[in-house]
Amino acid sequence: MVEKHHAILTKAVQALHARTFYAAFPEHPAPAVYGETADADGQARFKSWLGKKFDELHQPNPEKWAGQEESPYLQEPLGVAYPLFSVDTLVQRSEAAFHQWRKVSVDDRAEILLESLERVKKRFFEIAYATMHTTGQGYMMAFQASGPHAADRALEAIAAGYEELNRFPAQALWDKPMGKFNIQLNKEWRAVPKGISVVIGCSTFPTWNSVTGVYGSLITGNSVIVKPHPGAILPVAIFVAEIQHVLVEKKLDPAICQLAVDTFDQMITQPLAEHPNVKLIDFTGNSTFGSYLEALPGKVVFTEKTGVNSVILDSVEDIDKVAANLAFSVNLYSGQMCTAPQNFYVPRAGVKTPAGQVSFEEFAEKFVAQLNSLIDNPKAGPFVLGAVQNKKTCDRVIEAEKLPGKVWLKSRTFENPMFPKARVATPVVVEIDSSKKDVFSRELFGPIVLLIKTKDSEESLALAQEMAMHHGAISCGAYTTDAMLREKIADTMALAATPVSFNLTGGIYMNQNAAFSDFHVTGGNPSGNASFTNPEYVTKRFTWVGHREPVKG
Amino acid sequence: MVEKHHAILTKAVQALHARTFYAAFPEHPAPAVYGETADADGQARFKSWLGKKFDELHQPNPEKWAGQEESPYLQEPLGVAYPLFSVDTLVQRSEAAFHQWRKVSVDDRAEILLESLERVKKRFFEIAYATMHTTGQGYMMAFQASGPHAADRALEAIAAGYEELNRFPAQALWDKPMGKFNIQLNKEWRAVPKGISVVIGCSTFPTWNSVTGVYGSLITGNSVIVKPHPGAILPVAIFVAEIQHVLVEKKLDPAICQLAVDTFDQMITQPLAEHPNVKLIDFTGNSTFGSYLEALPGKVVFTEKTGVNSVILDSVEDIDKVAANLAFSVNLYSGQMCTAPQNFYVPRAGVKTPAGQVSFEEFAEKFVAQLNSLIDNPKAGPFVLGAVQNKKTCDRVIEAEKLPGKVWLKSRTFENPMFPKARVATPVVVEIDSSKKDVFSRELFGPIVLLIKTKDSEESLALAQEMAMHHGAISCGAYTTDAMLREKIADTMALAATPVSFNLTGGIYMNQNAAFSDFHVTGGNPSGNASFTNPEYVTKRFTWVGHREPVKG
Repeated sequence: MVEKHHAILTKAVQALHARTFYAAFPEHPAPAVYGETADADGQARFKSWLGKKFDELHQPNPEKWAGQEESPYLQEPLGVAYPLFSVDTLVQRSEAAFHQWRKVSVDDRAEILLESLERVKKRFFEIAYATMHTTGQGYMMAFQASGPHAADRALEAIAAGYEELNRFPAQALWDKPMGKFNIQLNKEWRAVPKGISVVIGCSTFPTWNSVTGVYGSLITGNSVIVKPHPGAILPVAIFVAEIQHVLVEKKLDPAICQLAVDTFDQMITQPLAEHPNVKLIDFTGNSTFGSYLEALPGKVVFTEKTGVNSVILDSVEDIDKVAANLAFSVNLYSGQMCTAPQNFYVPRAGVKTPAGQVSFEEFAEKFVAQLNSLIDNPKAGPFVLGAVQNKKTCDRVIEAEKLPGKVWLKSRTFENPMFPKARVATPVVVEIDSSKKDVFSRELFGPIVLLIKTKDSEESLALAQEMAMHHGAISCGAYTTDAMLREKIADTMALAATPVSFNLTGGIYMNQNAAFSDFHVTGGNPSGNASFTNPEYVTKRFTWVGHREPVKG
Repeated sequence: MVEKHHAILTKAVQALHARTFYAAFPEHPAPAVYGETADADGQARFKSWLGKKFDELHQPNPEKWAGQEESPYLQEPLGVAYPLFSVDTLVQRSEAAFHQWRKVSVDDRAEILLESLERVKKRFFEIAYATMHTTGQGYMMAFQASGPHAADRALEAIAAGYEELNRFPAQALWDKPMGKFNIQLNKEWRAVPKGISVVIGCSTFPTWNSVTGVYGSLITGNSVIVKPHPGAILPVAIFVAEIQHVLVEKKLDPAICQLAVDTFDQMITQPLAEHPNVKLIDFTGNSTFGSYLEALPGKVVFTEKTGVNSVILDSVEDIDKVAANLAFSVNLYSGQMCTAPQNFYVPRAGVKTPAGQVSFEEFAEKFVAQLNSLIDNPKAGPFVLGAVQNKKTCDRVIEAEKLPGKVWLKSRTFENPMFPKARVATPVVVEIDSSKKDVFSRELFGPIVLLIKTKDSEESLALAQEMAMHHGAISCGAYTTDAMLREKIADTMALAATPVSFNLTGGIYMNQNAAFSDFHVTGGNPSGNASFTNPEYVTKRFTWVGHREPVKG
């Protein structure tokens, strides 16, 4: 491995164990010197793909070229065409490539994967624009989430895999004293990859949610087929292309990592997942399909499905700061993050503050005011909210106004000065009584907030736990100044395998999940069985097999 | 933790990583000073239970007392009665105990579990006799497998769990430079146990196959319900009793580890496994039930099911030594080990030796001669073969004579001088043509050997791999002096997740699996999804959950 990559890998392994990234990489968040023209160049490069074939992939002889991506900002097709292949072709090529890749040493695999990340780094702006115009994310989020933050999670998976693969010795002498003599065996252990890995992407975070699985499977020696959502292909296509470029330079089969594009009218996800040669599946998406995948026999499946994320409001230092923080969390990418809060549990007696009780109604008013203030700020609103990826989300938001309770805020549209045709929807806020459990026992994807009026914080916590245990949860926000209650929330939500962000105010939000620090999805509740990136996330991608033979006398 | 236990734990973690036990514990195999009267005392203590209630458990108010164990050596009931409880009682007690146990620190849990092993050590001989008279194992195997070797595997699980639970820091400061200021979060991580763990034992290895799961679940904070096979209870009951004794001394709820005995006419395994509060299941037994358990939704399941173990014979240094080694493997405990070989692949042109080709027929004759010579040695045969646990195994052995091929050796009985009424069966050896795949595509549990005549070693290997991939395999023996073929076998069988013992002769056998060194079952083929003790075996028993909160300014 070249020295530069070895140094990065060593630091990454340290960060993995310290659970903090910036101690190991202090230089990372400093304004990266991407170059003064990087943004403009990236945008130009993105635009150069529009209406063209994405011809960077080393995947010859496609059956046809197609692509159905549309920009949520322009509400018109991107016109990028990708090579399409039959499931059989993809699997045959992957199978052949697997037997080459599994014999590449762990160090060489790491070297190749780290080099691909170096190259992707030069395309962060291109990826950012590709992400904006497929997912509807605002520019800053599109840059960070699809670029550096996705690359961090990929690096985390490489580091985790590298460490697990080196956890046990390749050989050992087993020397058993038997009294008069010793029995001596030479033993050796091989980390045997599972085979073909299929990574199924989602429409909202096409790289962040997928590259961990891609790099996790590759470092452990599996060949990978990346099956992006038909609505968000280009961002991850660039990652795949860069991996393939490095593979080709190293004289390896580029089919070690293939892109498997399909179209809405002819989806290949199911036949691909069910193919007997496919052994590993990574999936981000809806619960129905995720649960179907989890139940497929003979596969190792990693899912991130849906959840019902809660906010528990008990007592606060500064109610306005809290309302502002939560309003940002809800507005951010118009509530289209898997970590966005939905169920706000507020005691009917209100929220305790140093200045006295803030009533339920006062909190609702403050929260709505903060939402509006951000939406109506032309310098912030359009960039924070972005656009809505899927029209169905807009329908759902409108539908939410009919929920049985007072509508504190109706969804509306706003002017995006750069993209007048953008598909937008601001949050809807509805008050629901805690007795109406059926209303809030499911994910309402999009900018939908339910202010659930509870008897007290005990009930709030019980409901938050119950929702997480039975319907899944990926995040939870809790506000309390009571140390006893804080520990009770920490313990109760931990039993529901839900990470809690306590008392967040200012520039940090419950939706944000940091590589090398926050395990993303814990695998312990119905929101998914995978966790970025705990040891299981990589150890399940290979099998330890030990052979032995007597030492020759 | 007391110093003695801390030292053991430290060495155990070292052994886990070095994959060799005796380097860390050189004193271990030396004749342990159990005391001159230990054997007689143990036997007396075992006999004291016969016809009595096993009243050592801290499990009050049973619904009734019952027990149906029978000695395969005496073919009469032991008459030991155990307390029986409803599934609801067991689960309710376990649930309450869980919330106590999960809050005990990892160090204290380790201390308690290590202390229980110290105490079990004093009862190895009692456990040995209990094992003989439930499983039919010979005395030496009963002592080793159920006593020290089982305790080693339990220690291995404690060490693996201890290491995984300490893998990440309990707290960290996350400090993100933002340019003009830093965002600082206090983060903390909790290893949250899954809940109630049910460990389902088997009739042939009641402690060795179960204590890894018991200790693996306990160290990670789960409460455990041990559901032994109704035919082999006493050996593991002693482990459970000793765990409970220590718990009671530490003023903890003994229901942290309960024994759940049932009877053949009213088995509780299924309702217990399906109970929604049961989150973890460990199982050793048949494939049908194991696969049913693996498919239960919402459970983490560890299985060791059945497999078709192969021997590949290509070329040898000394054919007589090889035949003797394999004959021992087959005779050992009358082929009732999950690691015992069944399918012997021998090329029709025979086996290459330095003295020229040994024909298929010559090998068959030599092998049969070695089997008979061991069986008919009154000082060895009865002790190596032991007795047959289940009458159905004897029926299966007789049935095997009807398989379509030449019967090279018929099963017979022999005189066990100490136990004239012992249920015994010697191996049956049948020649099968490699074209008759349906005959050898399944486990024929017991002392049944199929000598499969293949075209050549290529076909032998292909068949061995196919059997392992489709029907599972826990072990494989291979004999070759060809380095190229050796690597091909190592690679091919590794892809089928099957460990290979190469060229074993002398006092080491393919059936034997050493704690801290041989991963037992790899989890990579249909013979089971668990592996003693790789990291997954313990990490799947808990969930990492992280909470975070801004540092107070």
